[in-house]
Amino acid sequence: MNDTVKYFLPESEMPKNWYNIVADLPQPPPPVLHPGTGQPIGPDDLAPLFPMDLILQEVSAEREIEIPEPVREIYRQWRPSPLYRARRLEQVLDTPAKIYYKYEGVSPTGSHKPNTAVPQAFYNKEAGVKRIATETGAGQWGSSLAFAGSIFGIAIDVFMVRVSFNQKPYRKAMMESFGASCIASPSDTTQSGKAILAENPNSNGSLGIAISEAVEVAAQNDDIKYALGSVLNHVLMHQTIIGQEAIKQMEMAGDYPDVVVGCTGGGSNFAGIVFPFIGEMLRGGSKIRVVAVEPAACPTLTRGKYAYDFGDTAHLTPLVKMHTLGSTFVPPGFHAGGLRYHGMAPMISHLQELDLLEATAYHQNTCFESGVTFGRSEGILPAPEANHAVKGAIEEALRCKREGKSETILFNLCGHGHFDMQAYTDYFSGNLEDRNYDEQELAMALAGLPSVAA
Amino acid sequence: MNDTVKYFLPESEMPKNWYNIVADLPQPPPPVLHPGTGQPIGPDDLAPLFPMDLILQEVSAEREIEIPEPVREIYRQWRPSPLYRARRLEQVLDTPAKIYYKYEGVSPTGSHKPNTAVPQAFYNKEAGVKRIATETGAGQWGSSLAFAGSIFGIAIDVFMVRVSFNQKPYRKAMMESFGASCIASPSDTTQSGKAILAENPNSNGSLGIAISEAVEVAAQNDDIKYALGSVLNHVLMHQTIIGQEAIKQMEMAGDYPDVVVGCTGGGSNFAGIVFPFIGEMLRGGSKIRVVAVEPAACPTLTRGKYAYDFGDTAHLTPLVKMHTLGSTFVPPGFHAGGLRYHGMAPMISHLQELDLLEATAYHQNTCFESGVTFGRSEGILPAPEANHAVKGAIEEALRCKREGKSETILFNLCGHGHFDMQAYTDYFSGNLEDRNYDEQELAMALAGLPSVAA
Repeated sequence: MNDTVKYFLPESEMPKNWYNIVADLPQPPPPVLHPGTGQPIGPDDLAPLFPMDLILQEVSAEREIEIPEPVREIYRQWRPSPLYRARRLEQVLDTPAKIYYKYEGVSPTGSHKPNTAVPQAFYNKEAGVKRIATETGAGQWGSSLAFAGSIFGIAIDVFMVRVSFNQKPYRKAMMESFGASCIASPSDTTQSGKAILAENPNSNGSLGIAISEAVEVAAQNDDIKYALGSVLNHVLMHQTIIGQEAIKQMEMAGDYPDVVVGCTGGGSNFAGIVFPFIGEMLRGGSKIRVVAVEPAACPTLTRGKYAYDFGDTAHLTPLVKMHTLGSTFVPPGFHAGGLRYHGMAPMISHLQELDLLEATAYHQNTCFESGVTFGRSEGILPAPEANHAVKGAIEEALRCKREGKSETILFNLCGHGHFDMQAYTDYFSGNLEDRNYDEQELAMALAGLPSVAA
Repeated sequence: MNDTVKYFLPESEMPKNWYNIVADLPQPPPPVLHPGTGQPIGPDDLAPLFPMDLILQEVSAEREIEIPEPVREIYRQWRPSPLYRARRLEQVLDTPAKIYYKYEGVSPTGSHKPNTAVPQAFYNKEAGVKRIATETGAGQWGSSLAFAGSIFGIAIDVFMVRVSFNQKPYRKAMMESFGASCIASPSDTTQSGKAILAENPNSNGSLGIAISEAVEVAAQNDDIKYALGSVLNHVLMHQTIIGQEAIKQMEMAGDYPDVVVGCTGGGSNFAGIVFPFIGEMLRGGSKIRVVAVEPAACPTLTRGKYAYDFGDTAHLTPLVKMHTLGSTFVPPGFHAGGLRYHGMAPMISHLQELDLLEATAYHQNTCFESGVTFGRSEGILPAPEANHAVKGAIEEALRCKREGKSETILFNLCGHGHFDMQAYTDYFSGNLEDRNYDEQELAMALAGLPSVAA
């Protein structure tokens, strides 16, 4: 029991730059296209939605982008986040593997999302923006932008996917506590929302629909900008502080991962932990396996098509090449609301095409089972999204046991489950539904992909 | 914006001992009495309820008691906890005061309670105990003992005060996730509970009633022990790790408090932060003010009588001398369930009699107002209990502003409000009830105090 379980980096070791993986890739990802012309878009096309600083980060090819001091100041409230060795979990699993996890639940809103919410609010503030519209799934992103908005004095309007809005009322309360407004999506406050409701008044909503609503509000109001909590290059890049810290902490532990595991919805927490490790590998470092774990009910990487598609349901965004289930695909209302996105971050999709990662999918009940095993041994109850990463890590540890290998496994515990306890109650009472997506709906959504030559 | 806001003690600086304030007091607190004989009780009288190691801590006069390594091992998961300078709050209040807060919400269950849950479970484990019964108010203690039980392999049965059981379903889910059982109190599983229900089938419950139920279960079953989350000397002592760390962190900050503020229910988080500072003062250190903030609806220190009373409603416990509203007093069902106790820790009551602390009481709506001000500036939404400490600290800061003094204020932010968000929703919608206690009920409860010569 005397061995260290926590690796805490001193504040002075907190990374000073975000890491841009594009700089190390053998080839850049395909361009973003204008849906009307089919031609690559430029920074000016995005100007109605984002401040120019973020747009330039989106298209940057620089390896490192400096984190502004006012952002570092706020990061320091909870960063560097701890890296733990899961010794008690290892004992319970009786595995020869060593399991480490990076814990992002220490942030004010309990997930990795403030890592990008804070800089996004900062750059908007610098650009004089007074109001931002956004979407949220389970509410981790919405509450994080609400937190960042309250610090920088920016009003935040959040469209929250309806099924999560109903499942997780405490997230709404948190957003309101930070002074933000929170509207169930689809709503009757936008054309996009009204169109969905006209077709299905009982729509569960989806991230694709909520994005449409928020983008519409920003596009139609000169004084409102838009912010996205995942998918885009600059968002993923802001999260790379996670993996950069983890590299230093694994060094403190005198170890290095053989496998890095993360859960994937839009892809931001996954990118955050794996991009810096993949970067080291691309620059000649140790060869590692990178495992993306996604929900079987929204299996973008394992069942999606790598194609140009819209980022939203109402087709207000540019076209991006990604693994997609089709922008009209609405996944069942499972509890990991942060993973209910029809597409995958283009950068992660590109990495999969380059064979730099593996993907696997699990149903939510088996993920909750893993989450409870983890919670009872490590004391932290993960968010439903993070349970997918826990499941992935446990599967790797059990494989090591079968194979008699003492590999080193690192996973990203991207958030705690304090706002998701109804899901645990449902799980224990056997009421956690494990509905699959409808194969016919998926086929239809894929058939409806835009035809773009690229 | 460049100034440090977080003081993080290295793990090597984590205190190795708990601090026992009795060693520094000019006189010890009055003895605990047997209700039948009126004579002081001895360790053996407590043996049916607690393992002997804890009983010996309860009556110890040693200044320092070593923290066992297996306990330190688990503490290290989240300790030393951070100390923050609340610079953004200072700006919002426009005060010349410097405000610091020690943040205990970083523990696995989000409050200070694991500081004592872990050693209590450890000593029970050492004594071969397989099952523990306990009570909980808002659920912070119950979930913390559930966490500790899951680590040491001890079954935990929690009697949760009914009003909180209904207000905070996520706390129950958390206890169950850690493998504990959680029963609403008063319940029909004990004689104590049945008696209360016979009188009032709609009883809100109270900590005094829940304690009766848990003590009854332990007293009637040889193989079940009892554990208490506050009030007792050994429990308060386990919390002194908070204040000991804070002393070192204030030194890192090159500062020392003029005022230390905490909220008081049973008294454990308050004792945790203030005892080590009071100890320094008693040993000739700087003179400080110590402020206890309690709910106006359960005002033990400001309205209670200093007298011998039972710790529980059904009169199963020994008699302790404390500030009490009477063991039959049932406070209104406000949201800070951890503060709904009819008595105050005997050691804290004793300190008040020695003029070592001041007490003040506030209504919950004004405390939530302070909590929201704090949350919007500092990014952390406090538990309803902790909002009382926030309110107390803000009042001190505003006094400094009026008086033009730049005093240093330190308060204990004993837990986050993630499991209490319904209270914030109620606050924002104007539905947070601020019922006072019934003066007549209080008079009756006080009239019913046991007559003991001591």
